[in-house]
Amino acid sequence: MPTPERRDALRALLRADGLDALLVTDLIDVRYLSGFTGSNAAFVVSAAGPDGDVFCTDGRYRTQAAAEVADVRTVLARACAPTLAATVPAATTLGYASDQVTVDGHAALVAAAPGRYLRAATGLVGRLRAVKEPGEVVAVRTACALADEALAGFLADGGIVAGRTERDVALDLETRMRRLGADGPAFETILAAGAHSAIPHHRPTGAELHVGDLVKLDFGALVAGYHSDMTRTFVLGPPADWQRELHDLVAAAQRAGCAALAPEAEVPAVDAASRDVIAEAGFGEQFVHGLGHGVGLQIHEPPWISAKGTGRIAAGHVLTVEPGVYLEGRGGVRIEDTLAVRDDGAEALTGTTRELVQL
Amino acid sequence: MPTPERRDALRALLRADGLDALLVTDLIDVRYLSGFTGSNAAFVVSAAGPDGDVFCTDGRYRTQAAAEVADVRTVLARACAPTLAATVPAATTLGYASDQVTVDGHAALVAAAPGRYLRAATGLVGRLRAVKEPGEVVAVRTACALADEALAGFLADGGIVAGRTERDVALDLETRMRRLGADGPAFETILAAGAHSAIPHHRPTGAELHVGDLVKLDFGALVAGYHSDMTRTFVLGPPADWQRELHDLVAAAQRAGCAALAPEAEVPAVDAASRDVIAEAGFGEQFVHGLGHGVGLQIHEPPWISAKGTGRIAAGHVLTVEPGVYLEGRGGVRIEDTLAVRDDGAEALTGTTRELVQL
Repeated sequence: MPTPERRDALRALLRADGLDALLVTDLIDVRYLSGFTGSNAAFVVSAAGPDGDVFCTDGRYRTQAAAEVADVRTVLARACAPTLAATVPAATTLGYASDQVTVDGHAALVAAAPGRYLRAATGLVGRLRAVKEPGEVVAVRTACALADEALAGFLADGGIVAGRTERDVALDLETRMRRLGADGPAFETILAAGAHSAIPHHRPTGAELHVGDLVKLDFGALVAGYHSDMTRTFVLGPPADWQRELHDLVAAAQRAGCAALAPEAEVPAVDAASRDVIAEAGFGEQFVHGLGHGVGLQIHEPPWISAKGTGRIAAGHVLTVEPGVYLEGRGGVRIEDTLAVRDDGAEALTGTTRELVQL
Repeated sequence: MPTPERRDALRALLRADGLDALLVTDLIDVRYLSGFTGSNAAFVVSAAGPDGDVFCTDGRYRTQAAAEVADVRTVLARACAPTLAATVPAATTLGYASDQVTVDGHAALVAAAPGRYLRAATGLVGRLRAVKEPGEVVAVRTACALADEALAGFLADGGIVAGRTERDVALDLETRMRRLGADGPAFETILAAGAHSAIPHHRPTGAELHVGDLVKLDFGALVAGYHSDMTRTFVLGPPADWQRELHDLVAAAQRAGCAALAPEAEVPAVDAASRDVIAEAGFGEQFVHGLGHGVGLQIHEPPWISAKGTGRIAAGHVLTVEPGVYLEGRGGVRIEDTLAVRDDGAEALTGTTRELVQL
């Protein structure tokens, strides 16, 4: 990944905000800017240019940092953030992520860097990360294709059948993704059968699947740091009328949300495009979460698509659209795709059919 | 788990610190005190008694909260911490975890709760969590036994052999733990062969294992919320003299650390008991991390055992002892157990042999 260009793009944002440098403490932001994949690091990016950049990790990662961050001056310390704050010149206006740095962490910065001006500066790297480079879209596409392939083989082999437990089904699908080359699941697989499908974020249990169940499956693959996210809801055996109607409704809402996903669309309008379909059918109260979220180096990242969301959709955004209706005690349906926004609209990167599949 | 008793124990700590209530925002702390396992929640525990306790999660978890936190007044909101701060009476001295609440999060509390006194209060729940109840020791023991069993079967079936890749080996062992009933690996398995074994926290790659390699395996099982942690270093084929000597050295250091782990022992003395063995052999610079850490609802939690650590060991602590020596470009050895401290010393909960096993 072209991290020097990313750092240069960040420099432009720093200069526009009147910051001399930014202390980057979020590990995913650090990875995005430096390529470093270890578990303890921070990074100072200087508005003036690469010569002012300093990377910090601790001794456990000396070898790894030398390989992954060969092009940036590196210091080794356990407490990376205050160590780096002390490296910037006196009178530097140093931005820090006030939505990420703790109250104690801020006090440590103040103590370590007397004579520097600490200024809250949130979302700067996130603004860059929200608009994916072509290579990043390819990376998410790869993860999505792997998840599609894993699911297709899994269904063909009878992976979701009455008598299996939720846990067995989830584990088998995750293992299949790993065998296909995923580094792991993108998040803990949600496999929820019967009444459990009405719990939006259900954790798989030892409960068995039964004929007549709605089976909600929300899962993804992690490949080379990038995530996929997809939900499908199946039915075991012939669907009851209410199950088919619920699925049809959510599918229509999902199509409406995807159709609204285009450059310049306002975020609340995208949410409303999908939510209104459900609300008009009388199930607005049963759609208890936002419509979608960004996907990239994190499974959940900005932009957030909800009724209270702000801003506009842009080309390069990679987002989920995932309406759901949850009927407590009976069952729920969610349908979700990961989509890439292009100049002419949004393309679904997850490709499994959105029709109601009877297993 | 007896969460009402835990909350009562916390009340005593609050009163001793002059706090009227504590705003608990760390999700693991919330789980410890309430039993709630969802991904968004906060909890106010009142010094005065259970009637002042309030739990908060969001609408996605309404059903789950009703089942898991049936005994506490519950409110539903997305922004749990400021919502709860606003529920406490005016003039309340409300503690918050300043090592966990962000600068922005603190500002939101101030805005939401005018007339309350916010006071930094760190480590209160951690102090309780560090001393495990008997049922918690059983839970860690169960996870450790599962990991031992998975490894024994894995080795018996030739799981670690020349020609397999690091990733394949790690995935197979993780899958075996899941088949035995683990909810997942306790953390991303470290499987590092040959020169990679010199990287303390190596992520498995597509590299193949070769005869003559040291193979470092650091892994654990997650069972019902509790973790295990164990490292063994094997050799593929007959060990070279330096490999045997390195393993003997680290094993001796590990025994010394375990022997020092007893109630009232000072933390730096436990670290030194193990580290001195390695330093006296001339490898002090190659032992680049602390000796160990607490294990429980988190894989890494207080107490931390290092040269700069503070405090004393106590009965009920569950800790790792994991010295390592890393020779860059050649290979490394780490040996680690999870131990429970009792009145008469420490008992290893992980039981796989610490002898050098030739595969």
